[in-house]
Amino acid sequence: MLQAQGRAVHQCDGGWVPVFVDQEQTVSLMSVGFLLEKPDEAVVWRGPKKNALIKQFVADVAWGQLDYLVVDTPPGTSDEHMAAVEALRPHSPLGAIVVTTPQAVSVGDVRRELTFCKKTGLRVIGVVENMSGFVCPHCAECTNVFSRGGGEELARHAGVPFLGSVPLDPKLTRSLEEGRDFIQEFPHSPAFHALSAIAQKVLETPAQLS
Amino acid sequence: MLQAQGRAVHQCDGGWVPVFVDQEQTVSLMSVGFLLEKPDEAVVWRGPKKNALIKQFVADVAWGQLDYLVVDTPPGTSDEHMAAVEALRPHSPLGAIVVTTPQAVSVGDVRRELTFCKKTGLRVIGVVENMSGFVCPHCAECTNVFSRGGGEELARHAGVPFLGSVPLDPKLTRSLEEGRDFIQEFPHSPAFHALSAIAQKVLETPAQLS
Repeated sequence: MLQAQGRAVHQCDGGWVPVFVDQEQTVSLMSVGFLLEKPDEAVVWRGPKKNALIKQFVADVAWGQLDYLVVDTPPGTSDEHMAAVEALRPHSPLGAIVVTTPQAVSVGDVRRELTFCKKTGLRVIGVVENMSGFVCPHCAECTNVFSRGGGEELARHAGVPFLGSVPLDPKLTRSLEEGRDFIQEFPHSPAFHALSAIAQKVLETPAQLS
Repeated sequence: MLQAQGRAVHQCDGGWVPVFVDQEQTVSLMSVGFLLEKPDEAVVWRGPKKNALIKQFVADVAWGQLDYLVVDTPPGTSDEHMAAVEALRPHSPLGAIVVTTPQAVSVGDVRRELTFCKKTGLRVIGVVENMSGFVCPHCAECTNVFSRGGGEELARHAGVPFLGSVPLDPKLTRSLEEGRDFIQEFPHSPAFHALSAIAQKVLETPAQLS
């Protein structure tokens, strides 16, 4: 998505140097993908080895001064999630953004993620509903591909903020596929409006008192 | 999806009795969900505990005479996948059905799943492309929500069969949400045709010589 494939991670005195994806060096990345020899290689690692790497990604990367560190996890409540929560705890993380799709099957999984956050003492910044309706580019009619409103109901039920719904937008996926800048190209798309409103709410979330 | 929530697993001499979802008792299920006290409970388990349960689900469930045992795993190449492959190896599994969505980001993940299958000696029955195009119910025009053809290209590149593409179908998701029988209700939908053609190819896959 960020056109960073094949880039390499270097060592410096402060640890691994993350990969910068823009000219202005405002966004830096770290991924196990940068450490593999071949991009198709499977990371067939058991829990303890993954946990160690997750800790290293927090402690041993020369992140420098950051405004935000975003950790994109797979779905679930497993080793990776526990390791990330533990590694970040000393840094007082702002919290978790929990993403669901609208259908009941997904909402059920995400309900368990919310229980996980509660158990591990991680604040929930809010719930995002992704793939929320599809506006046909041919006739402009909106269809709820996967039903709708599950995310908002989940947030209300769990007593956490609802951050917003992001519609399915073929323009967004095409831009990402081709590594183009969605914001520059489609400033009026419904997906962009939804995403920037969500980002704004996250930015307004106050740090937690420790 | 199968309207089995809240059902309980009982013990018999042969082990756990799986949950039957139809009157004719042709489909039986086992899930960690049946063993939890509350449906929202998060299974915050590390690898070794999960591995033990996966082994039990193969060895300690009174499955009886089965035509097929389908193991639905989360995406990834982690503890769960290794545990499932190891537990099933003595039973000579038919192989893995690898599901992707069409966009490059997903295809990249799935390429690593294929490497995992190769490493662990699991035959790949084939690749399925899910969410492959959306037929607007208002104007009947088809839009490639997430681009298209990634799954087929992936299969060709990896030298494994391509089993088919399943379009996004709001009727299918609505039926699943409401626990209705999609096959009975929508026998002419494109998603049903795609799914039954895929099932047919899987049924025709010969057992492996051991």
